[in-house]
Amino acid sequence: MSRIASVVVTPIAFRDPPLLNVSGIHEPWALRSIIEVVTEDGNYGLSESYGDEQTLTHLQKVAAILKGIDVFHLNELKTIVAEATASQSQQSGIELAPGTNQATTLPRVFAAFEVAFLDLIGKFTGRSVCDLLGGKVRDAVPYSAYLFYKYERHRFAQDDWIDAWGEVLTPDDVVRSARQMIDQYGFQSIKLKGGVFEPEQELEAIRSLREAFPEHPLRIDPNGGWTPETTRLLMPQMEGLLQYLEDPAPGKDGMAEVHQSASMPLATNMCVIGFFDFPEAIAKQSVDVILSDHHYWGGLQATRDLARICETWGLGLSMHSNSHLGISLMAMTHAAAAIDNLTYACDTHYPWQEEEIIVGGKIEFEHGSVRVPDAPGLGVELDRDALKQLARNYQECGIRSRNDVKEMQKYEPSWTGKAPRF
Amino acid sequence: MSRIASVVVTPIAFRDPPLLNVSGIHEPWALRSIIEVVTEDGNYGLSESYGDEQTLTHLQKVAAILKGIDVFHLNELKTIVAEATASQSQQSGIELAPGTNQATTLPRVFAAFEVAFLDLIGKFTGRSVCDLLGGKVRDAVPYSAYLFYKYERHRFAQDDWIDAWGEVLTPDDVVRSARQMIDQYGFQSIKLKGGVFEPEQELEAIRSLREAFPEHPLRIDPNGGWTPETTRLLMPQMEGLLQYLEDPAPGKDGMAEVHQSASMPLATNMCVIGFFDFPEAIAKQSVDVILSDHHYWGGLQATRDLARICETWGLGLSMHSNSHLGISLMAMTHAAAAIDNLTYACDTHYPWQEEEIIVGGKIEFEHGSVRVPDAPGLGVELDRDALKQLARNYQECGIRSRNDVKEMQKYEPSWTGKAPRF
Ligand SMILES: [Mg+2]
Ligand SMILES: [Mg+2]
Repeated sequence: MSRIASVVVTPIAFRDPPLLNVSGIHEPWALRSIIEVVTEDGNYGLSESYGDEQTLTHLQKVAAILKGIDVFHLNELKTIVAEATASQSQQSGIELAPGTNQATTLPRVFAAFEVAFLDLIGKFTGRSVCDLLGGKVRDAVPYSAYLFYKYERHRFAQDDWIDAWGEVLTPDDVVRSARQMIDQYGFQSIKLKGGVFEPEQELEAIRSLREAFPEHPLRIDPNGGWTPETTRLLMPQMEGLLQYLEDPAPGKDGMAEVHQSASMPLATNMCVIGFFDFPEAIAKQSVDVILSDHHYWGGLQATRDLARICETWGLGLSMHSNSHLGISLMAMTHAAAAIDNLTYACDTHYPWQEEEIIVGGKIEFEHGSVRVPDAPGLGVELDRDALKQLARNYQECGIRSRNDVKEMQKYEPSWTGKAPRF
Repeated sequence: MSRIASVVVTPIAFRDPPLLNVSGIHEPWALRSIIEVVTEDGNYGLSESYGDEQTLTHLQKVAAILKGIDVFHLNELKTIVAEATASQSQQSGIELAPGTNQATTLPRVFAAFEVAFLDLIGKFTGRSVCDLLGGKVRDAVPYSAYLFYKYERHRFAQDDWIDAWGEVLTPDDVVRSARQMIDQYGFQSIKLKGGVFEPEQELEAIRSLREAFPEHPLRIDPNGGWTPETTRLLMPQMEGLLQYLEDPAPGKDGMAEVHQSASMPLATNMCVIGFFDFPEAIAKQSVDVILSDHHYWGGLQATRDLARICETWGLGLSMHSNSHLGISLMAMTHAAAAIDNLTYACDTHYPWQEEEIIVGGKIEFEHGSVRVPDAPGLGVELDRDALKQLARNYQECGIRSRNDVKEMQKYEPSWTGKAPRF
């Protein structure tokens, strides 16, 4: 009954605004993959993962050899994925996206199927994925308002689609976009993606946010865009302003150097992107808060393992995001609802996406939080018409791997995307 | 359906041979508790834990407040146990038994119920506990021949029961008892409990074992009975003889000191007895191999968390045991079968016990291994007549907490049980 009959991996593309970061700018289309695992009795489990070519190749390869596997046998899945990905040499992706890093290949490919397996186990047992992870410690999972500097529109897109968020280039723009996002979603925490402009200007934006939202915890994430020296010079200006400072400088050594004089917690999703990073990061005291992300840490159960490590070493735990749709949002929500020491509001790019491939359309936020569904599994169903449309987008958009650097070079031909820039 | 209707905790006692260790000698009766969790639909889940008075008090207290809890809600169970055990000040037990250490109270009490919850979840889903942990990575779990120095009989028992193993005091006795145990169970690894006699004599026993069993990996466990200085002097004589050296010297500092000149892996179930011990033990490089034990590490899922930490920091993983019966043996077996980096044969005291409280009597070993059952849950059922008998033993034996020191003082009035002795 719970044996796999077939697996379908569908690459999709959806509109993505021209969001700026240290590497460059988001392309007009973001890529994802939708994984459907169908069992012999006709049930199906869902998962959403990366849509870049290297991940897709691995997903397709594994999908082709899963027939007959019992969805309870996650250890067997790990062995299969390990064997299927072992011989593959890979290009490394951009550093701010751990989902394209070669070191995360095994956990990333495993996670893509693990979530679908858990969705199916939930359907077999009549239990939510959250219950399979030990049950709710919170009824709803708080997310943060994830602000980006951005242009008004993609200047080099094939059509003239324009998003709802306008241009965000100045501190006043940042406050306006925060208000727009908080009015619409009710977020109680704010994160600003930095590393784009001179640090002084980005700190001015943080001070403006503090003034406009005196009660909202604030974070800034320059994605390793500052040198340790710059960061140490800037930190006195940030004192008392930040809930945490995310990846100001690159690498475990850079972060460790910053850490020695930091008055606020340092968070990372760049210098600790897998379990393999812990021994060195803990020995060097590089960071205080780890940003989890089941998509590259190895799934929802691995996220609990990560939580145990954070609890054991006295580290905080938050959650990272890349551009994603509702299947990912629900998987993130089930995991975060079951992990008691995940005490920070999670990151999500979800407000930046207009499209959806689940029945019922976009998932609702209440006061910045997503309610944990009690339905069996993830609690989401696939809208097959919407999936077809987004699969068509993928075929037509021509993008096969995320490349923020190349897109930025259309705007500034001399752009390199090298960090730290400041 | 999966809500708890009632919980019964039954203390039991069973015959225990006069086994010697660094603290003294086993008393004539070993204590355990049997936990039965009954759900509203009449299913029951089983677990076996410690039977000392302090643990029993906690178990009874928690048992009384579990009515209505859903057995999938292990996170809620943790909160309940944390609250119930928080205010209790406790006596610390003997150091070689982490199950009596105050620091393990919360994970120990949680684990006692977690196993019963998992047994029930298995019965609800029609799945073995091993499948709930990700499924088998091995079909049978290898255990080691766990040898003890011992007297022929308890000199101060109320009756003249005598065990089947005879006196074991010399290297020749050790080899004879190894042969007896290996003939009967087929074990492929051998562990000698040391810390009893002069180290030179115990090393002579190890050399005799090596000669008699050239292919069997060997371990010795003096339970911190040697000083770091003694250990460093002894280690050259052990070179090439041991699979690992278990707790030669006491404490993280003592083990770290030994570690600097050790030519064999150092293992522990004394200086790392919970997650809280890891930061210091890893920073000091105290050990190479951790002995898991779901009874005090916090259950079967926590044992997987422990395995992840060992994998992450490049530590080996083995399994510790105290005197136990078949419910514990099956829980240990399900966990070990699902953990790929648990690569050492597990310890078990099981051959030393004659009595049993599960249907079918003593569990069989094949070539030193226990087969993982495919039946739902743990795959064991309670023999209620046997349970009654062992509960009567408990009432009549008069022992309420394990005390190897006091028992030894009957033999040697000046005995203190203080370690290191050599
Ligand atoms: Mg980040
Ligand atoms: Mg030991």
